[in-house]
Amino acid sequence: MAETSMKIKLPVACFIMQIILIIIFGVLVEYDDGTDAKKFHQLQINGTTDIENEFYFRYPSFQDVHVMIFVGFGFLMTFLKRYGFSSVGFNFLIAALALQWATLMQGFFHGMHHGKIHIGVESMINADFCTGSVLISFGAVLGKTSPVQLLVMAVIEVTLFAINEFILLGPLGAKDAGGSMTIHTFGAYFGLVVARVLYRPNLDKSKHKNGSVYHSDLFAMIGTIYLWMFWPSFNSAITAHGDDQHRTAMNTYYSLASCTLATYGMSALVCHEGKLDMVHIQNAALAGGVAVGTAGEMMLTPFGSMIVGFLAGTISVLGYRFLSPIMEEKLRIQDTCGVHNLHGMPGVLGAIVGAVTASVASKDVYGDGLADVFPLIASGELDASTQGVRQAISLAVTLGIALLGGLITGFILKLPIYGAPPDTACYEDALYWEVPGEEEGQGELTTIRTEEGEKLNG
Amino acid sequence: MAETSMKIKLPVACFIMQIILIIIFGVLVEYDDGTDAKKFHQLQINGTTDIENEFYFRYPSFQDVHVMIFVGFGFLMTFLKRYGFSSVGFNFLIAALALQWATLMQGFFHGMHHGKIHIGVESMINADFCTGSVLISFGAVLGKTSPVQLLVMAVIEVTLFAINEFILLGPLGAKDAGGSMTIHTFGAYFGLVVARVLYRPNLDKSKHKNGSVYHSDLFAMIGTIYLWMFWPSFNSAITAHGDDQHRTAMNTYYSLASCTLATYGMSALVCHEGKLDMVHIQNAALAGGVAVGTAGEMMLTPFGSMIVGFLAGTISVLGYRFLSPIMEEKLRIQDTCGVHNLHGMPGVLGAIVGAVTASVASKDVYGDGLADVFPLIASGELDASTQGVRQAISLAVTLGIALLGGLITGFILKLPIYGAPPDTACYEDALYWEVPGEEEGQGELTTIRTEEGEKLNG
Amino acid sequence: MAETSMKIKLPVACFIMQIILIIIFGVLVEYDDGTDAKKFHQLQINGTTDIENEFYFRYPSFQDVHVMIFVGFGFLMTFLKRYGFSSVGFNFLIAALALQWATLMQGFFHGMHHGKIHIGVESMINADFCTGSVLISFGAVLGKTSPVQLLVMAVIEVTLFAINEFILLGPLGAKDAGGSMTIHTFGAYFGLVVARVLYRPNLDKSKHKNGSVYHSDLFAMIGTIYLWMFWPSFNSAITAHGDDQHRTAMNTYYSLASCTLATYGMSALVCHEGKLDMVHIQNAALAGGVAVGTAGEMMLTPFGSMIVGFLAGTISVLGYRFLSPIMEEKLRIQDTCGVHNLHGMPGVLGAIVGAVTASVASKDVYGDGLADVFPLIASGELDASTQGVRQAISLAVTLGIALLGGLITGFILKLPIYGAPPDTACYEDALYWEVPGEEEGQGELTTIRTEEGEKLNG
Repeated sequence: MAETSMKIKLPVACFIMQIILIIIFGVLVEYDDGTDAKKFHQLQINGTTDIENEFYFRYPSFQDVHVMIFVGFGFLMTFLKRYGFSSVGFNFLIAALALQWATLMQGFFHGMHHGKIHIGVESMINADFCTGSVLISFGAVLGKTSPVQLLVMAVIEVTLFAINEFILLGPLGAKDAGGSMTIHTFGAYFGLVVARVLYRPNLDKSKHKNGSVYHSDLFAMIGTIYLWMFWPSFNSAITAHGDDQHRTAMNTYYSLASCTLATYGMSALVCHEGKLDMVHIQNAALAGGVAVGTAGEMMLTPFGSMIVGFLAGTISVLGYRFLSPIMEEKLRIQDTCGVHNLHGMPGVLGAIVGAVTASVASKDVYGDGLADVFPLIASGELDASTQGVRQAISLAVTLGIALLGGLITGFILKLPIYGAPPDTACYEDALYWEVPGEEEGQGELTTIRTEEGEKLNG
Repeated sequence: MAETSMKIKLPVACFIMQIILIIIFGVLVEYDDGTDAKKFHQLQINGTTDIENEFYFRYPSFQDVHVMIFVGFGFLMTFLKRYGFSSVGFNFLIAALALQWATLMQGFFHGMHHGKIHIGVESMINADFCTGSVLISFGAVLGKTSPVQLLVMAVIEVTLFAINEFILLGPLGAKDAGGSMTIHTFGAYFGLVVARVLYRPNLDKSKHKNGSVYHSDLFAMIGTIYLWMFWPSFNSAITAHGDDQHRTAMNTYYSLASCTLATYGMSALVCHEGKLDMVHIQNAALAGGVAVGTAGEMMLTPFGSMIVGFLAGTISVLGYRFLSPIMEEKLRIQDTCGVHNLHGMPGVLGAIVGAVTASVASKDVYGDGLADVFPLIASGELDASTQGVRQAISLAVTLGIALLGGLITGFILKLPIYGAPPDTACYEDALYWEVPGEEEGQGELTTIRTEEGEKLNG
Repeated sequence: MAETSMKIKLPVACFIMQIILIIIFGVLVEYDDGTDAKKFHQLQINGTTDIENEFYFRYPSFQDVHVMIFVGFGFLMTFLKRYGFSSVGFNFLIAALALQWATLMQGFFHGMHHGKIHIGVESMINADFCTGSVLISFGAVLGKTSPVQLLVMAVIEVTLFAINEFILLGPLGAKDAGGSMTIHTFGAYFGLVVARVLYRPNLDKSKHKNGSVYHSDLFAMIGTIYLWMFWPSFNSAITAHGDDQHRTAMNTYYSLASCTLATYGMSALVCHEGKLDMVHIQNAALAGGVAVGTAGEMMLTPFGSMIVGFLAGTISVLGYRFLSPIMEEKLRIQDTCGVHNLHGMPGVLGAIVGAVTASVASKDVYGDGLADVFPLIASGELDASTQGVRQAISLAVTLGIALLGGLITGFILKLPIYGAPPDTACYEDALYWEVPGEEEGQGELTTIRTEEGEKLNG
């Protein structure tokens, strides 16, 4: 059996992981007050109405986030000409694992209730968020990893994500509702270090497959557009009820619109003959959502959001055009999707914007709403500038855990036991998937030949 | 004019059916309390607030269900290389008919109000549900039927669906919010029997078209992912307000995640060289949603949901790999989409899980919420074990009506008057659609040749 | 540098426009009561609860509308074989601009608050609506315009849209929640006149590219289906809370279902050999949503909605089959997407239906709900027949402003400074986009050749 065969490795990994998850869920997980029949009806005796169930405040946002995780990330990565099955399919697999493991890790760190983890729609959103971070890292190593490697990466990354998130939101008292730091910065730099450790000097053997074709770029646009449309839901999904969710969604909406114009302008400016580059459109236009992930819930104003979005789009396109080639050549980071440009730099920008915006927060601007956004400032425990400093420290902590965690994870993933693809078969579905074969006389219908993959396995 | 021409048949069918529908709607259908301007404002005088309008409890779920019906089912079936127009297009057509007819049939059986059918968002969800059942049956006969045949099938199946649903939810007092029995089991076995009656011994003449190409599998994944993401909304769409909707969505979420890992593991285990098979990923990963269709609203716990999902994914992959070839060869059931594996067996599993879960329901676990889920137990009319028995009987009734109804329908559809495709032109869009032709000098742009279809018609 | 190069033109246009937008937003725009932390918490002191924040009434509808604008319109236009990047990509660009500009223009005309424009989810929906109108006009000129031309068109059209909307909803007191007049009629006739002024006598040089291929038609169906599914949300997004939103969504649902059956029937009837034409399915099936854009919120009844939908589908197919060729030949209007058939005629039909339905409104039918739908009738300021007349006048005003505005805009767009494509390179992505090149030995993977586009630029 070929070394890259998943015949034994993948079933073993899936079954063991899923059975462990089921057992831990059985022991530790309970319905929360909004999902448990008995508990919610006890609340109702005390006057809680049906419509006040958390479900109605957050479920539409949850579903939008869910679409971003499974369709958004999944299809965004289908731009590769021969890697569509893996992009959507591995995205699906590791997300299904990560959201379960995240429920446990986040439940553990967010505080147990009499030794039990309580779950409901809010924990589901948080689990999807954590999953998003793993999928960002997946983007950095796309095409160069086996599904088992990805599952292992997901388990470690989710764990470290939950630790980092706990440190930021707990002891440090930072705010990061849309995850500029916890999700985007963390996921990007974690993934970049993993990609660095897994550096393949002979990757040019698969170079001809590391690119798009016409239809694959259109599939990728499905991912882009869904991410773009639902980013307002992403950033507002776990902010406080009322004006907070409303404001966060609106700030994100305007940041993205502004970012899109910056992206198109910059793309035409820096590209060959003034043509637009699909890579920029597919990715940089989203940077505006990343960059208001922290400050979106604050009184950033649409004006401020649009400035942030404009900057994010600009640096993202410049990153794709000028920085990515340098990172690959000098730093030996082969960042397949350019997550540094979409999530890394815009995430750091978002953290800085958040720190600055927090440091000027005042009762004057927020009124009684201050307690929703900055409880520590409202209670007098911190002043605004200290909150700003805490936000900045949070960025540093995130970078530290991401870089160190990615380093260790990279070396674990380098062990030659996961059936990773050879240098000659990267960005190639046929290694891990049954790919439809070519039909005689209808060559134009068939787009991928399986022989190569089979030879590799044979 | 060729026998398969739709020039007269389809317009006649569409216009007659639609005009009949319009007339019956004019005579029988009225706005319900939540949609009628006068009636809702009368309720408001008595204290009902705007936000308590049923619309806000259910419309987001309705739209998710709507996406599953039109995008989910429609694109899931585009996996066939030459049948994408028909998959999406006939799905669209028969769904548009079925939801109207279902409004009438379900309205009739769910209870008239002074001789009128009252409709609102809840009836819209129910109509979409009933439509889903027809689309499951469509999956069994995909590629081998004319649009007129499908319209006729839809009319009969919707009628029988409403009768079966009435028996289950009415006299039998069964619970089946997500339709493991009423939708999935019914739709699957109805369709399988229709496929059996329409058995084509010479279908191998179209065998080369009964398969996917690379891009068609990616289109199908759009359907899969949407079904997967929105299944929590599907199962919770008509459960009681509050904890019930919330809990059902969450149970389904975890069942599906667990099912996905089981599917990937099993697929690699049973396939050639340990490669993943798109057929399994596209279908079996969804079985977890089917299998908690009955018990999802109950206090199944996430733990229980994950076990059910795991089992569903496992049996579904095994069904595709081992059972489907036997069913085709021995039972002469040509089940194009393998609905037996995705909806049939997991539906029966879901019915059994529902019966068992119901039989252990207690006031102790559900508290005052018992009345929402099991009103007959809460009122003392039934004990839990009797409810369990009623659930089991419901499965038997569903199977009986589906098998008998499918048999009769199959013979009706066998009449040689609907313009069904010849054995040589199954799985072929060109028979019923204007398919874009090949351009000279740009052969690579053109993916379907129309000559064959035209010859058949000529 | 080639005349069509966007190297300078597009960045200049994007950056100047975006910077102007940012400045005006900074000066004029403020959070409204539902998005401002201080103001909403002041409302809460007076008893407003979180769930009464406008966000929870409208955000799910907003997101559905957002999907229609970016995925619906964007993918609907990908039917062209070589213009998918531009269809989705330019749709994305001009929508991102238009929604920002619309916020300002509509905010200005809808009434300033102490010199400030107040924004929240309702203004976001209105901005998306206005954007929709621009995208309809885009459909008329699709493939024949440069991105800079489209941006200029968007700025002018948004401005005129806001003026027309103000006249209708303000002084005239018309009702048009789903925009049969303000959005569809306006966008269609505006775009048609622009297309007339930009008439290209030698467009047949690009004729071979003005058509679909198999996969591009499937991409277009993604757009169609999303538009179809979410149209109930579109028409109900800004109607009054409670029964109004509920009823509007339901009326639209049944209108669309009925329209779909009419479309399939008519398509088979009028097409070659009784085959279905994708152009009809992709477009005419949506006309039922357009045609209840005005009357959808009224007590039209499902019965009435279905009749309207049936008529809309019928005239739309007939328009595509018989009227469009005449318009191109005799009137010299090259309407790429046939917006006259999808938005023009059905929009006019919708306006007429709205006028008739309004003219029979009565307290008897609407009860206390009359004030929600027809405040002027409820207050006794107008009688129903006068409201009907006002609706009819509104249609005339809309047509007048659209035709005149389109005429002026057309001449502005005709200036030879925007880098419009030559007659030989219409419907061609390669002029404005980096299109993935052909790989040796894998010709079947590559669908677009770039040489032609490059030659044009070289």
